[in-house]
Amino acid sequence: MRIISLILLGAGGVGAALTRQIVEQRQFHANTYGLRLNLVALCDSNGAVLASNGLTDEQLTDLLAYKADGGKFAHHALGGKQNNPAAIVDMAGRDGAIVVDCTASDETVPALLTALDRGYAIAMANKKPLTVGYDVYHRIACGGAIINKRDPNPTPPVINLGRSRWETTVGAGLPVIATLTRLVASGDTIARIAGTFSGTLGYVMTGLQEGKAFSEIVREAHNLGYTEPDPRDDLGGIDVARKALILARGMGWKLNMDDIDVRGLYPQTMATLSVGAFMDALPQLDDEFAGQVAAANAEGNVLRYAATVADGHCTVGPVVVSADSPLGRLSGTDNLVEFHTRWYSPNPLVIQGRGAGTDVTAAGVLSDVMELAFTA
Amino acid sequence: MRIISLILLGAGGVGAALTRQIVEQRQFHANTYGLRLNLVALCDSNGAVLASNGLTDEQLTDLLAYKADGGKFAHHALGGKQNNPAAIVDMAGRDGAIVVDCTASDETVPALLTALDRGYAIAMANKKPLTVGYDVYHRIACGGAIINKRDPNPTPPVINLGRSRWETTVGAGLPVIATLTRLVASGDTIARIAGTFSGTLGYVMTGLQEGKAFSEIVREAHNLGYTEPDPRDDLGGIDVARKALILARGMGWKLNMDDIDVRGLYPQTMATLSVGAFMDALPQLDDEFAGQVAAANAEGNVLRYAATVADGHCTVGPVVVSADSPLGRLSGTDNLVEFHTRWYSPNPLVIQGRGAGTDVTAAGVLSDVMELAFTA
Repeated sequence: MRIISLILLGAGGVGAALTRQIVEQRQFHANTYGLRLNLVALCDSNGAVLASNGLTDEQLTDLLAYKADGGKFAHHALGGKQNNPAAIVDMAGRDGAIVVDCTASDETVPALLTALDRGYAIAMANKKPLTVGYDVYHRIACGGAIINKRDPNPTPPVINLGRSRWETTVGAGLPVIATLTRLVASGDTIARIAGTFSGTLGYVMTGLQEGKAFSEIVREAHNLGYTEPDPRDDLGGIDVARKALILARGMGWKLNMDDIDVRGLYPQTMATLSVGAFMDALPQLDDEFAGQVAAANAEGNVLRYAATVADGHCTVGPVVVSADSPLGRLSGTDNLVEFHTRWYSPNPLVIQGRGAGTDVTAAGVLSDVMELAFTA
Repeated sequence: MRIISLILLGAGGVGAALTRQIVEQRQFHANTYGLRLNLVALCDSNGAVLASNGLTDEQLTDLLAYKADGGKFAHHALGGKQNNPAAIVDMAGRDGAIVVDCTASDETVPALLTALDRGYAIAMANKKPLTVGYDVYHRIACGGAIINKRDPNPTPPVINLGRSRWETTVGAGLPVIATLTRLVASGDTIARIAGTFSGTLGYVMTGLQEGKAFSEIVREAHNLGYTEPDPRDDLGGIDVARKALILARGMGWKLNMDDIDVRGLYPQTMATLSVGAFMDALPQLDDEFAGQVAAANAEGNVLRYAATVADGHCTVGPVVVSADSPLGRLSGTDNLVEFHTRWYSPNPLVIQGRGAGTDVTAAGVLSDVMELAFTA
């Protein structure tokens, strides 16, 4: 039995789901792959639990229940007040360790870079480290791969073939980054990537297409819990912009968040309202959206909220696409990505499916971990 | 610069396209990955060219032109009459070598197994070695991965995480096997895989849906070169059945070709006719197909030629699917695969795009080679 030590940053949401899946799949991974995934450290935002031989399934189950009840590892009997993830990586790491980042914070960057410096692998569900400065992206993306020594900043960067994985940062478990990596590695020329990367915005655009008022759909999505507590966090498009940036950087483009043209679904004048006042003001946007949808439909097109990465630029916002295209035929909350390349032309390579959710994301992280376990 | 030695079996079609792409991408692979892919042996069906330091770009270009003119390596000035690929692997192999099988023959099996025994990696565009006996599949699929010593035939087998890759055997460069591998490795439960895996049959079914006569479409596809010289090689469904078997075995099912329920698009009585007589007899099938399409359409469904892998069985043949499903919305020659799993439910994970062609297949093999170059 080969043992892989895991250091998990973030034990709620995706981190908790991942821990549950590791426990659930333990027998399968042992029988099929001869592998045991040992959680040797579990960190939350201000504390950590360490166990050099791996936390037992019972301990893990208890720790998840403790977290779900609002507990903090700093105050747990097994835990302690270690709030420096980089120090924990240093302490808990060992040959062949994998650091898994399931947080949504850029404060894990030092821990990830420490892991790569020590020769460990990293798997991320966290978009932030990949969307801060390009230099950080580049160090993470090249992590551990043999690169061109003459050019410390090659274009495009090595992605995903070394000791770093971040499949779930775009489209959750959908093989979007894996596909991009394969296309880039083969030397295929990518002309354009276009896709929808928000189930919430997909739900809104589908509702618009069905003739519902914009205010009505947003209220519905809000009531169903499909949006963040402040729906502007979805409607503003910043989360989609982060995903577009990760794709663009994967293609070798040295862009930053500032370079992305993001058009949200509400005007700047509504940015400073309280959530209640924002919801009340929504009906004033209804006519504008109804008009855009009608204009698109009149030409055999439909309105989608999409990210487009092409010609060195990223744009994120509402777009008019042919009703006959893969993006045009999409409805509901599924994500869809089209890769238009030298070899996939005129028809794109298309990937479609659920693009969010803690379990589907955790399963994607687990796939990344398994790949890393078999990669030098 | 890290050097990877490649031994290429099959230098026509996909093998020739791969060689051209390796030459074309040489600078890119050096700059971006710090890698040089050295072709140290090129084999055709009765000879081989060996060069321990790698064939030069000029030599490769000359050899491809020689092959395209009908030449055989046995008679080439650089070549020789070495018709035993396993012996060539033994001779030309070295640490970190990758054996690439671009033939369409099961005669390469000993060479592939020799490669794995020697610790080399293998990349296959060739379906045959994966669709002969299960024991051969299993040895290839587990190639080099650490497996459960107690059970020499674990279910499901380790796929694709070790030193073997065969992405292009199903859907050419589409990430079908990569997706299957990721789903299996995460422990997701795959309930059903359904897909179209033949551009030719997609063309035929689209034509039927448009109201054309079966005989007319087959003749058209034949004239356009979309079918094999004997169209029964496509219409019989055996090639699709091989792909279904590779998917089923990837899910851990110990099936053989005999276990697959294959329904072709012509009756057994037409199997022994000459090609000309077969083409002349096609109109007698027109009414039957027109009736099937009309019956499907009357219920809001459409007719597709699909492979379905579910409940321990593989079926390949015409199926009636909802016009609203991903498979139902497909038209033309693109391939499409739906993965219905525990996490991808009720909506499947869908992959769609061109599923055949020498260049797109060669690019997929090149992606496999790059992955292997970064895998222990």
